Parts: sequence; structure tokens; C-alpha cells
Amino acid sequence: MRYAVLGTGDVGRTLGGRLAELGHEVTLGSRTKDNPAALEWARTVGAGARAGTFAEAASSAEAVVVAVGGRVALAALEAAGAANLDGKVVIDVSNPMAFEDGEVRLSPVGSDSVGEQIQRAFPHARVVKTLNTVNCQVMVDPALVPGEHQVFVSGEDADAKEQVRGLLGEFGWPPHRVLDLGGIRSARSVEMLLPLWLDLFRHVGHAEFNLEVRRGH
Amino acid sequence: MRYAVLGTGDVGRTLGGRLAELGHEVTLGSRTKDNPAALEWARTVGAGARAGTFAEAASSAEAVVVAVGGRVALAALEAAGAANLDGKVVIDVSNPMAFEDGEVRLSPVGSDSVGEQIQRAFPHARVVKTLNTVNCQVMVDPALVPGEHQVFVSGEDADAKEQVRGLLGEFGWPPHRVLDLGGIRSARSVEMLLPLWLDLFRHVGHAEFNLEVRRGH
Repeated sequence: MRYAVLGTGDVGRTLGGRLAELGHEVTLGSRTKDNPAALEWARTVGAGARAGTFAEAASSAEAVVVAVGGRVALAALEAAGAANLDGKVVIDVSNPMAFEDGEVRLSPVGSDSVGEQIQRAFPHARVVKTLNTVNCQVMVDPALVPGEHQVFVSGEDADAKEQVRGLLGEFGWPPHRVLDLGGIRSARSVEMLLPLWLDLFRHVGHAEFNLEVRRGH
Repeated sequence: MRYAVLGTGDVGRTLGGRLAELGHEVTLGSRTKDNPAALEWARTVGAGARAGTFAEAASSAEAVVVAVGGRVALAALEAAGAANLDGKVVIDVSNPMAFEDGEVRLSPVGSDSVGEQIQRAFPHARVVKTLNTVNCQVMVDPALVPGEHQVFVSGEDADAKEQVRGLLGEFGWPPHRVLDLGGIRSARSVEMLLPLWLDLFRHVGHAEFNLEVRRGH
């Protein structure tokens, strides 16, 4: 597959690197053509890895991963260009977090989500929210954490969710550990998990953890 | 111990009933003296169980459980009377949920929480947020769900949190399954878990489930 990974931070570089290792063609997209982090990433990863603008990355891709901060996700996708997203699976792994006055704030929160914002702004994209509930190292290597812990998918398009399940399977998440929460509205629920994730990060002392839904019957 | 349990819904009756079974004296508090649900509860539970107003329940209690809806928690505690809460452990298990236009809304959300509201309004109470992340049957019988799933405590007073750990131990939550998230500010995180809980309830098909934090090392 040809993937665009939008965002050159830890999340984008980690997801993009693992996708290239798995044999996919990956363009890491950023605002500018000559982003040093993206160029260095492409040089280090080697085969299958390129750097480009958001639009260059999206235009050649079959699927687009949104790995920028949630608050700039719409801006990155607008720069990528609506026509370059039409009909494509857009995998949103972002969290709309910012530090304000020393506190973490989510925006939107409660009555909207980044996943919904993207789906509304790009109605011809097939948006799937996933993976935002775990650290990027765990995203691509769930065996870092023992047990049958899970990730979630939210989205309107059943076929797109199946494609994302396939990708998650390549990362090491078997189908029974990918919980389908329903439509893109449920992106609200997984985005609202971030404050607890941060408290648990402080409690555990590192980011290699995840939640396992245990059920009584 | 003498407990006041404020609220005559499923949560209040279940917590109050289990506390009475465990040998505690429990007054189930409601707005009025002659609440039919509370009177019926007291009759059914029998020994150790009484019904009364919020103020009657709180005045005689050593610890107060807030088991009303989160949006009316402050009103119930005001009716209980600040003087009846002074120095006491106030255990807040509520969620500030309401259905609006067919959708679940939390209020407050993100930048405040019911736990914090209670602590601000009653600065001499020792507020501990806990148990709001599980169904009331699981609250009092964690063995309904297999595994080492956990509950959380949030609060400013370390001694109050220890007392609550003791109570949780009576319910069947051993100390290593009670995660201390820090000050009462972390009540935000656990209150924001409710939308995911509701999505999981739909996914699982019943309420006998909980989350287990799994860690890599």
C-alpha cells in the first residue's frame, strides 16, 4: 500500500517507519518540502520512505494517516487538499490536546471530536479514528504490553474500518483486540480518554501500558 | 461505621445494601423523609438500615457517600448541611451525565469535575472520588468480572483515601487494585471516562465489565 503519514513528530515517524518496514511505500508529509525531521527520517528508514509536503504525500497515497496534533488536523488536511482525500481511508490517530496555564486541555471535548470534524470537513473521505489511546511505540508493537489489551475503531464506513483492522493486524493487533465502537461520533469517547491516560502515565511512570476491557460473561 | 448514602437510585440502594450486609449502620438519604424507595429499601435490608432526609443521614454519619446524579450532587450536599460534612470523608461516586437531545452530555467536563466542585463548596469535607467508573453491581462485587481490573481514588487527603481503600477492600477490591491518581483534580479524568463506558456497554451488551490497566514493565 501507499501511505501518506501527515506529521513529523514521534507519532508520525514511528508509524511511518513501521509501515515502511512492513513493505509499504510511505511519504511523511509536513507543511514544507524541506522539513529537516522528515528528510532525516526518510534517509534513516531508507527503502520505501520519502518526505514531502502534505499535498505531495496525500496525492500519491491510497490511505492517509493523520499523525499531527488534533488541534491542527483540519489545517493539515486542508493543506493536503480535499481532492487528494476523496474516497480514501483517512486514519485519525490524533488527540486534541494542548497545555494551557500548565494544565492539559482538550478541544473539542464532549460534544464534538477531531474525528467528527474531519469527517464533516471532508465528507468524501472515509474517516476511521483509532490508536489515539496508546503511546506510539505500543501502536506499532502491542506486545510491549502483556495481556489482551485492546484498541478501538470508530467510523461511518464499514469497509474502511475493515481496511484499518487489516493494518492494525500488521502492527500486531489481532481482530478480536480491535473493538468497534460504532460511528465516528464515538471518537468523542476515545478522545476523552486522554486525561486518564496522562494520569496513568504519571502513576505507572512510563508510557508502555494500555487498558484491557475485562467482561464478566 | 455509620454511613450516610445520599441517593435512592440503583447506586445508592446497592451500595447501602452491601454496607449494611457488611455490618455497618446505613441511613439512605433523600430529599424527603417519606421517600417510598428509601422506606422500601430500609424494610427489605433490615438490620442496620434506615431511611431519612439528606440532613438526617449526614448528621449521624461518620462518612458520607454521594450516590445521587453528579449534576445534583451539590444540591444534595447543601441539603445535607455543611456542618454535617465538616471533617468527614465524603465519597463521591457520581457521574455528571444527562441526556440532552438524545445524546449523553457531561457537565462539567474537561476543565472541572463534580469531585472538585464538592471539595471547593465544602472545604472542610475530605472528598474522595472513586467507583464512578464501574456499574454499581461491580462496585460491591468486583469478582463479577474476571482479572485484575481496577478502580481509582482521587483526593487531597491521604488519610481519607486510606479510609476509602479500607472500604473498597471490604467490597472486594484489594489495595493493589485501587490506583491512586493523585489530587481531586484527577476526578476530571475518571468522570471523562463515562462516554467510553457507555460505548463499551453497547459493545459488550451488559454492564458487568471493567478496565484493567496492563503495563509493560
